[in-house]
This record gives sequence, structure tokens and C-alpha cells, in this order.
Amino acid sequence: MGIVLGSNEYGKAETRVVRVTRSGTQHQIWDLNVSTSLRGDFTDAHVTGDQSHILPTDTQKNTAYAYAKTGACTDIEDYALELATHFVDDVAPVDGARVEVDEYAWDRVDVAGRPHPHAFVRRGQEIRTTVVTVETGHSGRHVWVVSGLKELVLLKSTGSQFRGFLTDPYTTLPETDDRVMATSLTARWRYASTDVNWSTAHAGIRSVLLATFADVHSLALQHTLWEMGLAALTAHPEVAEMRLSAPNRHHFTVDLTPFQLENPNEVFHADDRPYGLIHVTVGRDDAPDAGAAWHTATAAT
Amino acid sequence: MGIVLGSNEYGKAETRVVRVTRSGTQHQIWDLNVSTSLRGDFTDAHVTGDQSHILPTDTQKNTAYAYAKTGACTDIEDYALELATHFVDDVAPVDGARVEVDEYAWDRVDVAGRPHPHAFVRRGQEIRTTVVTVETGHSGRHVWVVSGLKELVLLKSTGSQFRGFLTDPYTTLPETDDRVMATSLTARWRYASTDVNWSTAHAGIRSVLLATFADVHSLALQHTLWEMGLAALTAHPEVAEMRLSAPNRHHFTVDLTPFQLENPNEVFHADDRPYGLIHVTVGRDDAPDAGAAWHTATAAT
Amino acid sequence: MGIVLGSNEYGKAETRVVRVTRSGTQHQIWDLNVSTSLRGDFTDAHVTGDQSHILPTDTQKNTAYAYAKTGACTDIEDYALELATHFVDDVAPVDGARVEVDEYAWDRVDVAGRPHPHAFVRRGQEIRTTVVTVETGHSGRHVWVVSGLKELVLLKSTGSQFRGFLTDPYTTLPETDDRVMATSLTARWRYASTDVNWSTAHAGIRSVLLATFADVHSLALQHTLWEMGLAALTAHPEVAEMRLSAPNRHHFTVDLTPFQLENPNEVFHADDRPYGLIHVTVGRDDAPDAGAAWHTATAAT
Amino acid sequence: MGIVLGSNEYGKAETRVVRVTRSGTQHQIWDLNVSTSLRGDFTDAHVTGDQSHILPTDTQKNTAYAYAKTGACTDIEDYALELATHFVDDVAPVDGARVEVDEYAWDRVDVAGRPHPHAFVRRGQEIRTTVVTVETGHSGRHVWVVSGLKELVLLKSTGSQFRGFLTDPYTTLPETDDRVMATSLTARWRYASTDVNWSTAHAGIRSVLLATFADVHSLALQHTLWEMGLAALTAHPEVAEMRLSAPNRHHFTVDLTPFQLENPNEVFHADDRPYGLIHVTVGRDDAPDAGAAWHTATAAT
Repeated sequence: MGIVLGSNEYGKAETRVVRVTRSGTQHQIWDLNVSTSLRGDFTDAHVTGDQSHILPTDTQKNTAYAYAKTGACTDIEDYALELATHFVDDVAPVDGARVEVDEYAWDRVDVAGRPHPHAFVRRGQEIRTTVVTVETGHSGRHVWVVSGLKELVLLKSTGSQFRGFLTDPYTTLPETDDRVMATSLTARWRYASTDVNWSTAHAGIRSVLLATFADVHSLALQHTLWEMGLAALTAHPEVAEMRLSAPNRHHFTVDLTPFQLENPNEVFHADDRPYGLIHVTVGRDDAPDAGAAWHTATAAT
Repeated sequence: MGIVLGSNEYGKAETRVVRVTRSGTQHQIWDLNVSTSLRGDFTDAHVTGDQSHILPTDTQKNTAYAYAKTGACTDIEDYALELATHFVDDVAPVDGARVEVDEYAWDRVDVAGRPHPHAFVRRGQEIRTTVVTVETGHSGRHVWVVSGLKELVLLKSTGSQFRGFLTDPYTTLPETDDRVMATSLTARWRYASTDVNWSTAHAGIRSVLLATFADVHSLALQHTLWEMGLAALTAHPEVAEMRLSAPNRHHFTVDLTPFQLENPNEVFHADDRPYGLIHVTVGRDDAPDAGAAWHTATAAT
Repeated sequence: MGIVLGSNEYGKAETRVVRVTRSGTQHQIWDLNVSTSLRGDFTDAHVTGDQSHILPTDTQKNTAYAYAKTGACTDIEDYALELATHFVDDVAPVDGARVEVDEYAWDRVDVAGRPHPHAFVRRGQEIRTTVVTVETGHSGRHVWVVSGLKELVLLKSTGSQFRGFLTDPYTTLPETDDRVMATSLTARWRYASTDVNWSTAHAGIRSVLLATFADVHSLALQHTLWEMGLAALTAHPEVAEMRLSAPNRHHFTVDLTPFQLENPNEVFHADDRPYGLIHVTVGRDDAPDAGAAWHTATAAT
Repeated sequence: MGIVLGSNEYGKAETRVVRVTRSGTQHQIWDLNVSTSLRGDFTDAHVTGDQSHILPTDTQKNTAYAYAKTGACTDIEDYALELATHFVDDVAPVDGARVEVDEYAWDRVDVAGRPHPHAFVRRGQEIRTTVVTVETGHSGRHVWVVSGLKELVLLKSTGSQFRGFLTDPYTTLPETDDRVMATSLTARWRYASTDVNWSTAHAGIRSVLLATFADVHSLALQHTLWEMGLAALTAHPEVAEMRLSAPNRHHFTVDLTPFQLENPNEVFHADDRPYGLIHVTVGRDDAPDAGAAWHTATAAT
């Protein structure tokens, strides 16, 4: 009839895994949101309803918990690599797996100047992320690691301008030499290989991103994002490519003149919607092929 | 230095446009969430900070409001087509525009059996969507329309089984002949052309999706989604391709035996997380090329 | 030491109970969010850590599920009454119980003009609510039922003015004879007794609220809320008191004059924050005492 | 007719005020969510629609911005006191005002070991709060300050038990000597006067709450909350009363035995719903009267 099954995948989303590790009386916690998704020849599962190639999503959840027991439980990248490799290697119908892990950070509670051995406080809203994709085929196994961070909320109270832009009949925005620039940053970077010290790399890249945001005089949010990506790739040769996505959280100077008050960029209204939304990719001209690294689900949701 | 700008785009997200149209004392309302995003050669905006090719996102917002005044204001597809075409045709540096519109439905308030002329009540959480992409290049202008719906919450209290699936050492799920199946459906479909009666098509496709969900005995959520897509494409030749994305909102039968009560699929716990997540594409083997229809932003967010 | 335990209570919040009832092949679903909270002399549980008076919140959850099996499962008021009475009567240390139930409405899927026997679609975001409080003491048992609705989103595109208000040096708002008025209504009403046909009363009160919102020319949101409460109490003698809480969801007329366009209340920006927030109580001068009907938790959260 | 207007109030909710203060090149930011609500004789505004006693909520918003310019802009308590006093003193029909302020904390971006003068990163999800109520009447002016914190997410990986609780026929929960205890704490405390160093007090109280949570071996969440309140009131005589509200965010030990794995409290499932919900008040037997300190809006929402 000419109607055919196209790309498809399935998995278990948002399994909330919390792992406690003890070193004597000193505890570590590792707080994760894990999503797994499998690809393969699942045509029968859809078209005839035969589920014999389908490993239940419930099983994927169980596996996420079991690997949280048996794994090293230090870096989310290693955990995701172990899980994705398992699905591809050990489950016959699966030829591709994507494992996404969000990690929530905790600090120890400080009691009279000493960090407590087993009491913790959530550090902030920033989330460390990784997306690991493993594929196998006639050319062997391929692995991609895309790590990053999201919900890193940043603000500069000066050092940001926006001038010389294109105008058309619908343009009313005035130019500005000094504005508040604020965003909730999502940054994802593809590593060129898996031979990386994940936590060291993450901390270093995060530090470069923050310092560049702070130090570069911004000519536009696009300009700042480019400079951030450029600085990160310059300092971190292990990164092949970085994608930055940033809402421009507008802070409008409030007009106080009706009340006989001046407002030299002191009082702002922080608006919710609409917001600018900027997407920038910074790469290397000699980077290895991205392959399936950035493939997310087939349906745009 | 080998570090280069890759794909990028920018726009204004979530402009909340409400349009009231009067026919005598009878009012219509049209309640939209509009996001626009532009592509083109914006290298200088990033690398040197020269913004002369950048139409501000504030201008895009103004344009969305202005076109809500001057347009026909009936179908979101036409509105998005007008906006996207404007950006590509009238703004020199822009060679691609994507306009996404979500429409919130309202019913008239019923007063003593008659629909009120200007008082409305939000119908439900289901949202009608469209994503229109217009690109221009040496091969001329190309247009793609991907319409759909999201947050359509469905439940079957029987007529759903899950058996004969693959098991491995991590599998504990029992087979079932009768379960609750519930989801919050996202469906998006690419039209083969723009010669479509948008509202009629939308209503027809929605109706087929719902009837198929209800009537097909489900062998798995994958099976149900395939049948829904198959039925929609069979009935609607104007649709080239459909992508369905559906969380499996698990309803677990509560064990009441400790209280000397039977529970023959009567009392369920509706769980939040984790959830299964199924993505299925249903297409035609002779469909026109999807081109940029499904391109969303460059950064996986 | 002079430091003392004050008021306290505890319970299980947001148990998501879904109940399927079968009449032959015709199914009914009943989709609830249930929160229970107990009061009594729990001093030891706090001060010495002795939990012998504390029925675990896990038990409260189990009880909510069990009563969903054994109860009539038609009106949330009856279900909440049964649960609250059980806790007060059957659990010795408990002398007060508050049971809150939110009900999510579902419609049957329409297939070719007939309602499907076991496939359902969520009706809307509006939620039916009840809060039942049962207390026992030396003066016997007291019962209060406060029912209502929330997240009922309403909009009038005309028939609303705001004039003649107080001005001070901080006032810049112009008067208006014609504006959009929109809100997400929360209404709660205390029944004078428990001798009520709950569903009939709920439907009738909801209908009066909607019709009054639609038909009354609004002089202010306060005025509209008063008229809604007045109409409801006039038509429903079983209601002793009603409390209405309504955000004023501002819709601002967009200034299109820079684009040579008029905007006679046709194009609006729907703003998120800030919003007006109006609280109104409408009662009877001869109503029975409210007692503990409106007591929520002790901590303002 | 016997139907009467009861308690009522109105205001502007969630005005998002951001204040930048400069000391040379060193900037401070102060990021607030401000809600104001007024009480008085507003009968005519409701019953006849005469708005001459109603100061528009738009004016309240303007005032919040203006006072962010003219005030000291250091402690939210002082800002809220200034605003509330203004409404009561300067707006004739107003005899009561409640001003609620949430403050979002920011850290300076660290660049190579030095804090940046004007680049900031959001610290965490914890929010500092205050609710100031000012009332005037024949007995003069009364002022109450209730400050606190919310969304302080805490977890203990051990040092928590739950035993010896009441059981009934619906109880299935086993006793435990060692469990994870996690919560998102809301604490509010009423100061006995306004003669307080707000920031010093807030930091001290927060520190005591955290240390007590960490150090006390928990016999139940009720017990921990009592100990936290007791410690805070013991150390801070300026606090008359504290109310703590805490969900018990359940972490369930995952059963790994089907996979031949032990799980000695190492791998947990963090569940979303349902959750325990505990409310505790800790006070002084000689505290000044709470008056209107804890009065929130008249409608339970």
C-alpha cells in the first residue's frame, strides 16, 4: 500500500536513580535521572504486534538500577557507556542505544566548619548532563559521548551592548550600549574520543565558559556564545564540537520618570516571555564525523 | 586556527498573541504561542560582533503581532506561512525561517443553552501545533508544513495487552492480557503540499487517531501508534509522513490482598516517573523529500 | 524552657488513585489526586521520638486505595467523607482528619458518533475539588465539606471596564471602558450540611458561575467575583459560603501605530507575570459556624 | 437578602524586580519576586462596582519598582516594611497590607580565583522569603515580620530510623533502622519585633537548621523538624515562633535480588508522588500574640 514504518526507537525515560557509596562513615551520593532508548529492527513489534524483539522498558529500568550497584559510580559518562554498551552487546535485536543521564549536584552540609559525613544539601539548579550513543553494524562498533550542562543561570549587570543591528519597518528597539544580559545556558559538547578524564574535563570546560561569559565585553548574545565556545575548544582539544543554546532572558529598565525618579540601569523588570533564543555551534574543521552523536528521537517533540 | 562557526539560528520564542475578531457582536478568539527562528549567513554577528545582518528578536515579536492584525487569522498554518515567507522574502540576510505556532482552544460559555457571543472557557489541555519552514536558495523557494497536536491525554481501561516480549536476566515484568494503557500523545504530520484545507484536515486526522486508539486491540504501545499512523495516512493522502511520540503513563494495579480485597483491574496507582517513551514514524515510500521540514534548532536542548 | 510544640499535622499527599468501574462492557473511570492529613495529640512523636501514636503515611496511602475499592466511587465528597470518618473513628489517637480530593474529568472518545465503552480523553484542565474535615471531641463529631473547582480558565473579550479607581502619585494606569478580562478561577464553597446531592449541586453551581461571568457587565474583577458568588448562593441554598480566588491574567493591547496599523482591541499580548490577584468571600449572615472547614495546614507554605 | 460580602483582599502578585547597585565598578544584584495585597473597606468595589477606594494593582506594581530605587535595597524585610507601611499610611482606604518577597541568591562568577565585579551565577534553588503585615486601627499600628526559606533540599543517607509506629489493618510498612531521609524544607519564623539584624539572623537560623538536620539522629521526620525548630528558637531569642513544612521525599531501596545482587541501602528509587507531608509549629509559651502575622489570603487556594 506504500505506507511504511520509518525510523523508530523506544525506551524508559527519567528513571530516578540515587546511589549511596560508603567509605567508612563517609558517604557519597550520586543523584541521577536516567533515560535509555533502543534502536534496531523492531518492525514486527509495530506492524504485526509480535513483541519478541522488544526488551521491555521495565527491564531497561531494572538494568539502570543494577548497573548503579555494580558500576564504578563516579562519572556519569562511564555509567552511560556501560549501560549503552550492554544493550548493544547483550540484547540481540538492539543495534543502537542512547543513554542520557542528568546529574544533580549535592554539597555536604557544613556543621561548625566541617563537612558532614552523611548530610547533604542540593547545590543548585545547574545540571550536569551526558548523552552516550553506541551503535554497532557491519563497520563495527561506534561510540559517541556528548556531555554538557544545563540550567546554568548567568547574568551580567553591565558589559553588554547591542548596536548596529538590521532594521526594517517593524523595528522599534533602540540601540543600547549598556544592558543586563541574562540567560539559562545549555551547553553540550561532543568529545573526540572516550579517552577522557570526564570530571576533570567537565570542570575545566565549565570554568572556561563562565570566565568567558564574565570577561568578554558582549556585542550580542550570539557574540558571547561564540566566544564561549571558541575559548572552550581552544583550551580543551578533547572537545570536537560544542553546541550552545541560550534564551535571552530580557531585563527591561523600568520607566520611573512618572515618579520623578531617574533609572540609570538600576531597576529592572525581569520578563518571562517572550524571550530571545539563540543556538550556536562551534566546531573544528578537522573534527571526526559526528555520526549519530546528536541523533535524538525521531519525532520532534 | 581550525575552530569554526557551525550551524546556528536565532529568534523570538513564545510570543503570546491573542487575536479577537468581531463579526457584529459575535466575537472569535485566537490564542497563540508563536516562536520564530531565522537562518542565514550570520557569521559576523558571532565572530566579529557586527550585527548588521541581525534583525532583532524584538522586531520578530513586533512582526508576529502585526501579522496577527493584517492576516486572515483563521488557520495557524496560513499565519505561519505568511510570517515565514515575509522573513525570507523581505529580510535580505535571511534565507531560512521556521515559525512554530501552538494554538490553545476555547469554547464559548454556554448560558441557558445558547453559546455566549464574547465569553469563553478554555477547552482542554490539548494543543494544536504547526511548524512551517521556508527556505530559499539557488534552486528557488521551498516550503514545508508540519502540523500536529500535543498533550492529547488518552486512556484505555481495557483492550490492551503486552505479551511475548524479549526477556533477559534483568527482566521481571510479567506478561499481561489486560492492562490500562494511557499516554499524552504528540503527533506531527508533514503535509505533501500547501494546497490543504488546514482545519478540515486537522479535524479529520485527529478523529482518525482517536478512533484508532479506541478501536484497535493493542498488542503494545508501538503497535497502537503504528496503527494510528497507518489509519491517518490511509485516510489522508495529503499527509506525507507522521511522527508519533508517546509516553507510556504506567498505571499499576494496586496489591490489595493484604487487606483481604481482590483487585481485578479496578484500582490503579498512576505513576509519574519513570515512563516508557515510544517514537514511531509512519511514511509513504513515494513521499516527497522531507528537506528541512523536521530541522529544529542546531543544539540538542 | 518555655519552648513548646504548637499546632501540627501530618499525612500523605498526592496519592494518584485511578478507579475503573465496569457495568458490563461499559467502563467508568474515576481519576483522583488524594491527600490525607491527621491531627491529634502527637506530642511524643515530636518531642521524645515515640511514634506509637503515629499511623504511617504509607498506611494512609494504602487506605486511600482500599477505600477506592470498597466505596461507591461516584462522588469525591462521599469518598472523602468515608476516608476522613474512618481515620477519626478507627484510629484512636486521631481526633481530626482532613481529606482533599482533586478529580480530573475524562470524556469518552467519540467513534463515528458513538461514545466508546472503554476509551477516554482528558476533558480539560479544570479540576473538581473537595476538602472534607471531620473532627471529634467532647461535643461530638463535626463534619465540614468544602467543594469547588480550580483551573477553570475564563476570558471575556468585551463587557469589562475599569474606571473611577483611586489614584496616587504612583498611578499611571489609564481608565478603560473595554478590555479583555481573563482569569484562572478557583472557587470553593462550604456546604451547610452533608445532605446534598454532590454532583447535581456541583454542576448547578458551576453553571451559575459561568453564566454570571459571561452575562454581567464587569465593573472590575472584584465586582464580577462578587456577582458570581451572589448568584451561586442565591440559587443554591445548600451553600453557606463561597470563596473565590482569581488572578487577573492581563491582556495588553499591543501598540501597532509604529507600523501604521490601528488596534481597536483586536491584538493582545497575554502576559504571565505580574498578575492581579483577587480574593473574595461571599457568605450568609445566618450561616452555620465555619469551624475547622477552612483550616489548612499550620505552616503557611 | 442575607447574602453578604465577607473577608476580601487584592493585590499584585509576582512582580519580578531586579535591582543593580553599583559601588564603583563593583555591582550588587538583588533579585526579587514581590507580591503585595491590600485590605480595607472595599465593599463598594464589589457590591456596587464603585472603584473609588481601589488603588489599582498596576499602581502597586509601580510602587514596588519605585521603592526598589529609593530604598536601601539590602534586606528584603526592610523593603517589605517600607512598602507595607506606605500602603497603610499613604493610601486612605487601606488599613492592612501584606507584602511577600522571595529573594533569589546569586554568587559572583569566579574568574581565575577572583570574584567578578559584575558577572553572576544563580546560587541554588533555595529561596529566602519574608512576609510583612502592617495593620492600622483604633489601637494603633501593628507590624509582623515572618521570614524564612523555602526549597531548601536536604538529604541524609543514614542516621534516620522509623520504628514503633501505630499499626492498623491497612499497615504494610516494615520498620526500619536505617533509611534515606530527604525533604524540600519550607521554614517560616515570626520575629518577636522589628529590632533585628535581618541578614545576620537569617544566616544564623539557617545554619542552626542545617546543623540540627545533619547531627540529630532522626526518629521520624516529625522528630527532626521539632529538633530543628527547638534549636533555632533556643539559639535565636528574637524568634517568637517557627513553622516548618516538609514533604518526605521517599527514597525506596530497589530490590536487586532478582539479579543476584545485594542492596544494603546503596541503590534507591527517588519517587515523586505520593509523599509524606509534615507540618510542625514550635513556639514560646510567652510569645507576643501572632495577630495577623500568618493571615494569608481569604480563599484557600
